[in-house]
Amino acid sequence: MKKILVIGAGRSTSSLIQYLLFNAENENWFVTIADRSKELAFEAANEHNLAKAIAFDVNNEEERIRLIDEHDLIISMLPAHMHISVAKDCIRFKKHMVTASYVSKEMKALANEAKEAGIIIMNEIGVDPGIDHLSAMRVIDHIREKNGALEAFETFTGGLVAPESDNNPWNYKFTWNPRNVVLAGQGTCKFIQNGKYKYIPYHKLFRRTEIIDIDGYGKFEGYANRDSLQYREIYGLHDIPTMYRGTLRRPGFCKAWNMFVQLGATDDSYIMDDSENMTNREFINSFLAYNETDSVELKFKHYMNIRQDDIGLFEKFEWLGIFENTKIGLKEATPAQILQHMLEQKWKLEPEDKDMIVMWHRFLFKSEGAFKEIHSSMVVKGDDQKYTAMAKTVGLPVAIATKMILNGTISTPGVHVPISKEIYNPILDELENYGINFIEKEVEPRFY
Amino acid sequence: MKKILVIGAGRSTSSLIQYLLFNAENENWFVTIADRSKELAFEAANEHNLAKAIAFDVNNEEERIRLIDEHDLIISMLPAHMHISVAKDCIRFKKHMVTASYVSKEMKALANEAKEAGIIIMNEIGVDPGIDHLSAMRVIDHIREKNGALEAFETFTGGLVAPESDNNPWNYKFTWNPRNVVLAGQGTCKFIQNGKYKYIPYHKLFRRTEIIDIDGYGKFEGYANRDSLQYREIYGLHDIPTMYRGTLRRPGFCKAWNMFVQLGATDDSYIMDDSENMTNREFINSFLAYNETDSVELKFKHYMNIRQDDIGLFEKFEWLGIFENTKIGLKEATPAQILQHMLEQKWKLEPEDKDMIVMWHRFLFKSEGAFKEIHSSMVVKGDDQKYTAMAKTVGLPVAIATKMILNGTISTPGVHVPISKEIYNPILDELENYGINFIEKEVEPRFY
Repeated sequence: MKKILVIGAGRSTSSLIQYLLFNAENENWFVTIADRSKELAFEAANEHNLAKAIAFDVNNEEERIRLIDEHDLIISMLPAHMHISVAKDCIRFKKHMVTASYVSKEMKALANEAKEAGIIIMNEIGVDPGIDHLSAMRVIDHIREKNGALEAFETFTGGLVAPESDNNPWNYKFTWNPRNVVLAGQGTCKFIQNGKYKYIPYHKLFRRTEIIDIDGYGKFEGYANRDSLQYREIYGLHDIPTMYRGTLRRPGFCKAWNMFVQLGATDDSYIMDDSENMTNREFINSFLAYNETDSVELKFKHYMNIRQDDIGLFEKFEWLGIFENTKIGLKEATPAQILQHMLEQKWKLEPEDKDMIVMWHRFLFKSEGAFKEIHSSMVVKGDDQKYTAMAKTVGLPVAIATKMILNGTISTPGVHVPISKEIYNPILDELENYGINFIEKEVEPRFY
Repeated sequence: MKKILVIGAGRSTSSLIQYLLFNAENENWFVTIADRSKELAFEAANEHNLAKAIAFDVNNEEERIRLIDEHDLIISMLPAHMHISVAKDCIRFKKHMVTASYVSKEMKALANEAKEAGIIIMNEIGVDPGIDHLSAMRVIDHIREKNGALEAFETFTGGLVAPESDNNPWNYKFTWNPRNVVLAGQGTCKFIQNGKYKYIPYHKLFRRTEIIDIDGYGKFEGYANRDSLQYREIYGLHDIPTMYRGTLRRPGFCKAWNMFVQLGATDDSYIMDDSENMTNREFINSFLAYNETDSVELKFKHYMNIRQDDIGLFEKFEWLGIFENTKIGLKEATPAQILQHMLEQKWKLEPEDKDMIVMWHRFLFKSEGAFKEIHSSMVVKGDDQKYTAMAKTVGLPVAIATKMILNGTISTPGVHVPISKEIYNPILDELENYGINFIEKEVEPRFY
């Protein structure tokens, strides 16, 4: 019997744990679910006879060591910065490890030790990062096999609200960590286009968008992620002239969101004076020039250059209630924290709402003297508020990779991300059983 | 005989040292000039019989202690962060100290020790900070004496080029640390207007300017400094409804400079790829969207919304040579470093050029039931490239304060900034002998 330890039983783990418990008997697994909250772990284990739930603090070194030593494979669903101590223990006790997080520098540095210990540390096997690697590499390898030369690779992912639950003027609700959404894009974005490095500062990011159309789902807009270039090496695309990674929203979102950026309302670097007693209206007014008679609304429209015929734009802000005299009530808060607080009251998922993950890749390549272009897209909707699209797309690849490591299909030791055919093919194939599939189509090549 | 130690003989010290040497015999002073560069110190001492020059590294603790112990008063003209070790030695050996820099937290923390040691550590007695305190406090105290209630205090200072040397389309040359000019305003600006806190993010700062007119010198524009509020307490203006500190440029500068900000060209947070081999034109193009046929110039005009009839705007950028195919040649440089490098070649003072310091205060107050407004302005031009306006306005207040400490006019021990009548009156009076004077006028009160 193989013993699996899942650390963290938060809301992104429902589909992962469901898969593990469903397959436990067949695969001869025993699953330990460990969380800081005993209740959460207990609920996740669901009285399954091949599972147990325990309360566990990952910072308790003694207990962590004991637990890891008792298991064969550790799935860390902790926040990214907490993986590293788990990884070190996995090396020490020669246990495999799976995470859905980006490989940190510290994690990368463990590569040789993991190899020597003969263990696999598989990372970036959720969604963005995860399914994007699997699906992109499948197409990239396919193009390579036909001696095609990749000229451009663009990839976008978005965590959105499903069309049937999309009922607000922003066409957006929080389906994931709101703080990350409010702070998204801060810093400088970097990508490469036609062999030229391009840099976009944060205050221009949400105006440099690209429109994408996905059959049956309509239009989306994408803005650039911070660093689009790191995957050139990992994907073996060292000399690719164009590489761009981004995030998807519904059209119109970015132009409006940019107004919060322009105001300074997403700034997380300073505490606002007397934020506790401030109202929504005063918050917005603190970014606008003083005027004795003009309303906050007019000053906002003027500063943001919103015109009478910009249909639906000002309404987005009115709908959010940012001009209302509602007291914020947050002590010593930054602008970003106050904005998040305001948004959370409006962009929250209702009990019946479903989320949606959208992914889109564009491959432009030269094959037998001619340019060709392939688009590949995936749309996954949540079943409900427990088995969300996010939980499915993060958790199922983690679960399948776990199975493949335990049954020996994945066997090369080291610190990995899932980019090889032996990994992406079986995982993508199995994901199709869960409604997670890509639709590829060839289109007329476009050049920018 | 009183012994004065001047640490640092850089270009801001010429007028300071000139004053000290000129008055040495009368005042019975001996002046030691210490600099890392023996040549610089030697040149500054100018073979004066009451002066000597020495090579000195402030980080050499043993020598620093020995030197400070040998003198009665230490003038530190070092970069601001280096004052603190000198200050601690001054406390230890009970020596007075004078600096032109802002009081750091560390310096403030020495207040009690300075009092116990019976020594004076006088700071912020150059120009902005310095002459601004002296001149503002004189008017503020005057208003208070008449039972006036201050409603608004605004103060602006600019280091500019004198009108007779102002011969480029930016009406600007570097008269001071270019790096500080390129990075000016980064972070968030905060001020208070009519009792409301106002915040301006960096990417809006250079569009929220105010136009100021100074008799005989024409118009200037001012943008806000980072924190306008810290002097409320020091000036005793706790409840003042409007307080604003800013920096002056000639009109049109800020709108154009903002375009560098918008591009992301003032960003100092990341290294550009292959900056060494980049040309000016490629640098600008790296911030612009890719287009196969459009020129960098057109893309720049379009992105920055520069129209055909924006007279003199695009010309500013052409004049800088930013579209030229000149190789930059800086290794691993940030955008801000590259921009600085480009600007330094164009905004440099020619041998005959003169600089100019402009200061302007606005006081709005209520007195005997009526609103009144006073403007107070100072314009100082440099004599030449040695005795610059900057050297005079920084160095002379330092020198006069030194005299006043040594002759006992300033006698209260502690860590100080020059805000009391006993200090500002004699210094402002003596500064008039050097052409540094304020013109006050009462105007029709304005309200914003």
